[in-house]
Amino acid sequence: MYRAPVDDIAFALNEVAGLRGAIEDGLFPDLSADLVEAILGEAGRFAGEEVAPLARIGDEDGAVLKDAAVTMPEGWKDLYRRWVDGGWNGLSLPQEHGGQGLPGMLGVAALEMWNSASMAFGIGPILTMGAVDALEKHASDALKAVYLPKLVSGEWMGTMNLTEPQAGSDLAALRARAERADDGTYRIFGQKIFITYGEHDFTDNIVHLVLARLPDAPAGTRGISLFLVPKFLPDDNGVPGARNDVFCASIEHKLGIHASPTCTMIYGDGFAKDREPGAVGWLIGEENRGLACMFTMMNNARLAVGMQGVAVAEAAYQKALAYAQERRQGKAAGHDGDGMAPIVLHPDVQRNLLTMGALTQAARAIAYCCAHATDMAEAKSGDAARHWQERANLLTPVAKAFATDVGVDVASLGVQVHGGMGYVEETGAAALYRDARIAPIYEGTNGIQAIDLVMRKLPQSGGEHVIGYIAELREDVEAVRASNLPEFGRSAEKIAAALDDLEAATRFMQAALADGRADEALAGATPYLRLFALAAGAACLGRGAVAAKSAERIALCRFFCENLAGETGALRERACEGAESLAQAAAALK
Amino acid sequence: MYRAPVDDIAFALNEVAGLRGAIEDGLFPDLSADLVEAILGEAGRFAGEEVAPLARIGDEDGAVLKDAAVTMPEGWKDLYRRWVDGGWNGLSLPQEHGGQGLPGMLGVAALEMWNSASMAFGIGPILTMGAVDALEKHASDALKAVYLPKLVSGEWMGTMNLTEPQAGSDLAALRARAERADDGTYRIFGQKIFITYGEHDFTDNIVHLVLARLPDAPAGTRGISLFLVPKFLPDDNGVPGARNDVFCASIEHKLGIHASPTCTMIYGDGFAKDREPGAVGWLIGEENRGLACMFTMMNNARLAVGMQGVAVAEAAYQKALAYAQERRQGKAAGHDGDGMAPIVLHPDVQRNLLTMGALTQAARAIAYCCAHATDMAEAKSGDAARHWQERANLLTPVAKAFATDVGVDVASLGVQVHGGMGYVEETGAAALYRDARIAPIYEGTNGIQAIDLVMRKLPQSGGEHVIGYIAELREDVEAVRASNLPEFGRSAEKIAAALDDLEAATRFMQAALADGRADEALAGATPYLRLFALAAGAACLGRGAVAAKSAERIALCRFFCENLAGETGALRERACEGAESLAQAAAALK
Repeated sequence: MYRAPVDDIAFALNEVAGLRGAIEDGLFPDLSADLVEAILGEAGRFAGEEVAPLARIGDEDGAVLKDAAVTMPEGWKDLYRRWVDGGWNGLSLPQEHGGQGLPGMLGVAALEMWNSASMAFGIGPILTMGAVDALEKHASDALKAVYLPKLVSGEWMGTMNLTEPQAGSDLAALRARAERADDGTYRIFGQKIFITYGEHDFTDNIVHLVLARLPDAPAGTRGISLFLVPKFLPDDNGVPGARNDVFCASIEHKLGIHASPTCTMIYGDGFAKDREPGAVGWLIGEENRGLACMFTMMNNARLAVGMQGVAVAEAAYQKALAYAQERRQGKAAGHDGDGMAPIVLHPDVQRNLLTMGALTQAARAIAYCCAHATDMAEAKSGDAARHWQERANLLTPVAKAFATDVGVDVASLGVQVHGGMGYVEETGAAALYRDARIAPIYEGTNGIQAIDLVMRKLPQSGGEHVIGYIAELREDVEAVRASNLPEFGRSAEKIAAALDDLEAATRFMQAALADGRADEALAGATPYLRLFALAAGAACLGRGAVAAKSAERIALCRFFCENLAGETGALRERACEGAESLAQAAAALK
Repeated sequence: MYRAPVDDIAFALNEVAGLRGAIEDGLFPDLSADLVEAILGEAGRFAGEEVAPLARIGDEDGAVLKDAAVTMPEGWKDLYRRWVDGGWNGLSLPQEHGGQGLPGMLGVAALEMWNSASMAFGIGPILTMGAVDALEKHASDALKAVYLPKLVSGEWMGTMNLTEPQAGSDLAALRARAERADDGTYRIFGQKIFITYGEHDFTDNIVHLVLARLPDAPAGTRGISLFLVPKFLPDDNGVPGARNDVFCASIEHKLGIHASPTCTMIYGDGFAKDREPGAVGWLIGEENRGLACMFTMMNNARLAVGMQGVAVAEAAYQKALAYAQERRQGKAAGHDGDGMAPIVLHPDVQRNLLTMGALTQAARAIAYCCAHATDMAEAKSGDAARHWQERANLLTPVAKAFATDVGVDVASLGVQVHGGMGYVEETGAAALYRDARIAPIYEGTNGIQAIDLVMRKLPQSGGEHVIGYIAELREDVEAVRASNLPEFGRSAEKIAAALDDLEAATRFMQAALADGRADEALAGATPYLRLFALAAGAACLGRGAVAAKSAERIALCRFFCENLAGETGALRERACEGAESLAQAAAALK
């Protein structure tokens, strides 16, 4: 059973990502180190004792659709209620709407724990938080007054309605339409698919944020508007009243996260017979500027999905380690007892476990650094705010893609460590392998993240932001060197080499874009992103190990540097020199 | 739907692995190139048209246990009957017992196709073939006369009963016991788990090969004997008669291959009330020499499981390619049409597809080279036979582990190429991801394969065999160079570098073993195996591309060499230098 690694999380927040320093600098006046510890401890308790025990029934029974209503698995509605009552939904949401207003880092840390305990449970609040974000930044005061308190408390949940059958990664192809009504509201028509928590029985109302086109909208992405469409129309007191014309037509039969209802939503098909057809919606932001509003929530959602990757990796690591400590097979050098040795003593099993642990810690470090940057961008102003926003922008696709790939790889290794028991569903390792696989896909596939990193993030500040970031990471190399601890082995050398690879590949990408060779950059985007993450991850582990000076952290850093970071050389080649052979071979695919 | 890549398979058999040369040299007098083509074509037809359409119902309904009897999914029993009637079971089984006596390469090629169509179907015959192998080499003539014709025709199926709850990778811990009866038979008692096709309704009888200990047997692996235990005891005419005291107590609820019944088998628990307790068994080979007999069948079964890896990778590749050609999203440089481009035109999707295709071809090449070596060992005699047997021994763990890892990775990429549709079970991509995951586990985990490669295969012929193999692979580099085709890009250089890495790591491993530093070798075994496979795979693709001189094969070889083979540098470091940091970090795991 999952036990929240509260110390590891606090360490990554404080010593790697910089929360401690920010608190000491007075950036979060309401926050103290003790409070951070208390919150993380209590979140860990809730995740381990309340959420985790319901993961299995969620996987086995799943969400069930009947007559356009989704019933959640037994015990889940009550779990959600207890979770809301604990104040977890509003942890890092704005105080003026009833939240606790804590830095996003803490919200993200708690997210990790909910998602380690159950990804199917943990994904729901991510959507609500995204909706709060979008409404807070772009909605009218009237809408804010009705919806934000309910969404912040968790009394209602939010959804994001982007995808349509013909419009997935390419939102330009979106067809859902909106018509202006006389009263200033809109009527929404169309079909949306893959809507996470589009329908459920957790809350009395569900607040859908929906992308659609006005009749006179320009084609493409510049003609998309964002609308708020509640399942029930609130009356003047904000109490859910008439049923709106939005219904769940089906839910997907998925590989994993079975308790997360993935809905096909039909807007304006006239199911609500007592009304004119069309789902009643309210405009968020300006007409035809919906994509910009949606991107607000998408950035945070992407980091949150990255946390799902960290979370499932952590859960898989814990499960595999516990099994390896328990299960006995064969003889091992380090075993003095008479009988068989715990398999954790076999070097090959150790390699799997350390690979799992090191990848998990690296992904966590990058994700928390990204959250920290977002917090700093809010806490600062002017140039500093812009700097930190660029940092958050830069790290978001890396955190999302790398951490979710790590989630899949670590969950797969976790099955492997279990041997035959891993393939049996009862063990739970297989469920993590199934759950993990969604995260590289949703909230922008990892291919899209890589393209975003290369095409939109590397050019920030004329290309200087990322170069400055790499220079900062070189300080970690110096810190490792300066520590003069022989236990680091060749860590400093390896991090430095990885950063050299990263800088060279970064300059290659920037030059390719500047020279109009976008296809070359696109061809290398995925290996580039992985290279970025391995180099940054190595530097982060070095930073943490220097700060901690604990034998365990130094050893894990060294393992990462000497066993995993070495990939960067090949990744650099692939990123910078792979395009020609790719284009040549791709001729046969068409 | 799966369509057998008959041309690719024939090409790998003939031009990469050496079947054409062996036929031309007269080693297989009954075989011609035309016959090979005809057999592959017909197997491909059967796999695509008969097996593949039943894969889904197999996955959805699975095998069902009731009252100790397993019912296979609807249509499967009839499918098996048609498959047997087609003569497929005996394809490469001995003619003297009714088989067609064709080289094992053809049997393995057909196996690939059954398993691409359905891994749950394809695993069954692998066990039967293993049983035939063990009986043919080790059983008495009397047993052969009763059992081999039935097993070769497929009228009965075979199983391998090794694993017990406490004895998985470590067979020394095995407890099942055998008692001598007065009539020369034995009585078997004990529980076996994870018995593939341990119970089903395909055939009138099931022939279990069971490892157990005699009362006076030495402890450990030198006290294990192999027994034949039929489900029904044949009468004097070989007709199944009395029910033997072996029963299926439960079947596992697994991640995938749902139609393959994974059984807990109970021997001698007195279920057969009309008899003395104990399952009636016959000794195979000598008492206490059972493990040696079992290894006979295990080697071939390991290659066969490797073929499952190739097979599931091929199926995933085909499915993803078809989807990418169909699905349209966004704009792409190579698309002249008005609307959205097929996603196969996006470089990042191309990278995924080419990675899938190149890994699949490399794994296939290695596996068929392994099968060829086994055939050559049988066709030759004396030193040549020993040489080829060592080659088969060397390549077996590589083929098993690399190909099954490739199966998982390619199936995972296949889900990714499908985007959100990949996570929905209806698409079938997720089922391949689930099925693929068993192959790195069973028939000896991939960790065990790596240990086998390093500890038992590298020392063959005083270490010279593997060095000679690497020297042979260097001829492929020369052939690529000598072709003078600019389309190869830097392929020759990259293969040569990979082989340098392989040779250096090989000599490191041999030296470590010679110096008594076994733990260092064990710590690097898994990266060493991957390095071995990437280097050998690159050389094989080069060999094939030179032989074919087709633009497509040259381009895929180049893609593999310039994008995937570059990993060998980091793998060499990990294999040769990773042990110290691994041991240091592993202290925290215990």
